[in-house]
Amino acid sequence: MTKEELFRNIQTKKSYLCVGLDADLKKIPSHLLNTADPIFEFNKIIIDATADLCVAYKPNIAFYEALGPKGWESLEKTLQYIPEDIFTIADAKRGDIGNTSELYARTFFDYFNFDSVTVAPYMGEDSVKPFLIKPDKWVILLALTSNPGSQDFQLQTYNGEKNRYLFEAVIQKSQTWASPEQLMFVVGATRTDYLERVRALAPEHFLLVPGVGAQGGSLAEISRLGMNKQCGLLVNSARNIIYAGNGTDFGQQARLEAQRMQQEMERYLGEYLPV
Amino acid sequence: MTKEELFRNIQTKKSYLCVGLDADLKKIPSHLLNTADPIFEFNKIIIDATADLCVAYKPNIAFYEALGPKGWESLEKTLQYIPEDIFTIADAKRGDIGNTSELYARTFFDYFNFDSVTVAPYMGEDSVKPFLIKPDKWVILLALTSNPGSQDFQLQTYNGEKNRYLFEAVIQKSQTWASPEQLMFVVGATRTDYLERVRALAPEHFLLVPGVGAQGGSLAEISRLGMNKQCGLLVNSARNIIYAGNGTDFGQQARLEAQRMQQEMERYLGEYLPV
Repeated sequence: MTKEELFRNIQTKKSYLCVGLDADLKKIPSHLLNTADPIFEFNKIIIDATADLCVAYKPNIAFYEALGPKGWESLEKTLQYIPEDIFTIADAKRGDIGNTSELYARTFFDYFNFDSVTVAPYMGEDSVKPFLIKPDKWVILLALTSNPGSQDFQLQTYNGEKNRYLFEAVIQKSQTWASPEQLMFVVGATRTDYLERVRALAPEHFLLVPGVGAQGGSLAEISRLGMNKQCGLLVNSARNIIYAGNGTDFGQQARLEAQRMQQEMERYLGEYLPV
Repeated sequence: MTKEELFRNIQTKKSYLCVGLDADLKKIPSHLLNTADPIFEFNKIIIDATADLCVAYKPNIAFYEALGPKGWESLEKTLQYIPEDIFTIADAKRGDIGNTSELYARTFFDYFNFDSVTVAPYMGEDSVKPFLIKPDKWVILLALTSNPGSQDFQLQTYNGEKNRYLFEAVIQKSQTWASPEQLMFVVGATRTDYLERVRALAPEHFLLVPGVGAQGGSLAEISRLGMNKQCGLLVNSARNIIYAGNGTDFGQQARLEAQRMQQEMERYLGEYLPV
């Protein structure tokens, strides 16, 4: 999917919501456990309930891997079920030497047909570039993550320039590898205090923002500080939406929560999107 | 496996060789392609041919993932086939927020029963700690990798201390999270010029050293500069061993190459291991 197409979907749906498909056998409603593929059944109902309200789905690959080959099959069926016009993100946080990153790219782009993969920057250019060989596929590079551990290295200052953090070096350096048409950055919703610094370095890029809801980030703040002229934001919510209900009506409960977020986003698009 | 057990195996076998099980359908001998599970058949023969010459096996997870659910099954069978006294490394380079790293740990430690997982440090403490909850399981943290991209961030200097590189900050900081009984570091064989700095910061840790052979690192240099009183080295070789031959005798060819490396290692153990 191109950047332009993604922006058009955001305008049409008045939403920049990404739904995190982090289905966990221990948390999904118990009435699904007797079906042949409970994880896929769960995802199907969540997708049916939210597809008109969101512009992206983000399965966290760890949840599927933890189930072995069966989890891989649930993921495959889920990807096939997601409507074509919705952007898909393999939240895999991969990154390895060139020939290995190439294999990961093959897995997520060719085998599953994801639009994008999240990638860890630690190994540098040749670990990232193999994910960029197809013009409609994206790398979403970890910059400033939402977890407490982001303090350990990402927020240490670098000596390239005074007061430049490692995450800023990542944002700057990686722009020599790819254009904003193929590169997004992960910036945690709990890090709004740094959003202006991110936008100063990456005014045109889309940002994938996890950490709203369960982790405590504010949608209002993110939208005010992070929105650019093509919106430039995909805000992820997983637990708050997919586990909004736990009975046979969990789809409707998920829809209500997704709707609440979409309506809030519609307001912010009106307020902050330059016309 | 404990550090002491690993060292005992090294003394018994006079080897610190790790064989990289990076089986690729495009490269394995063609006579295997008609078997029910060519990847597992290939690994089985490689393991039979090398088990008495090495102390560790390291499947690169990307190679198995790229094959979908079938690859996952080949990996499962391979792990079951590896003799119990050989250390196993899931070369997965994972790392995510706490609840997700926990799932990855479950996958590699509980589902597959690996002894260790390679982890990327970018997300910091809470992305690494979930891999440390069992006392006989290990984290092998990326420090200074063998690829050209290690220049981009790992070798940038940090301002915590003068002339301290990011990889040094990783080695130092992570020691507050785990002891050398559960923590190793990846240091690329192409980076021998930094091995003394690594050993100054981590005198007791095991180092996993990829990049000998195909990537050009020197076993002699690594052994001279990196060996500590419990050897402290696992030197990985993949392509040079597993693709040493391409006919029906590929197992014997692999054995010859593994033997050549073991004999060289036996010499270095005699020269550099303090008695």
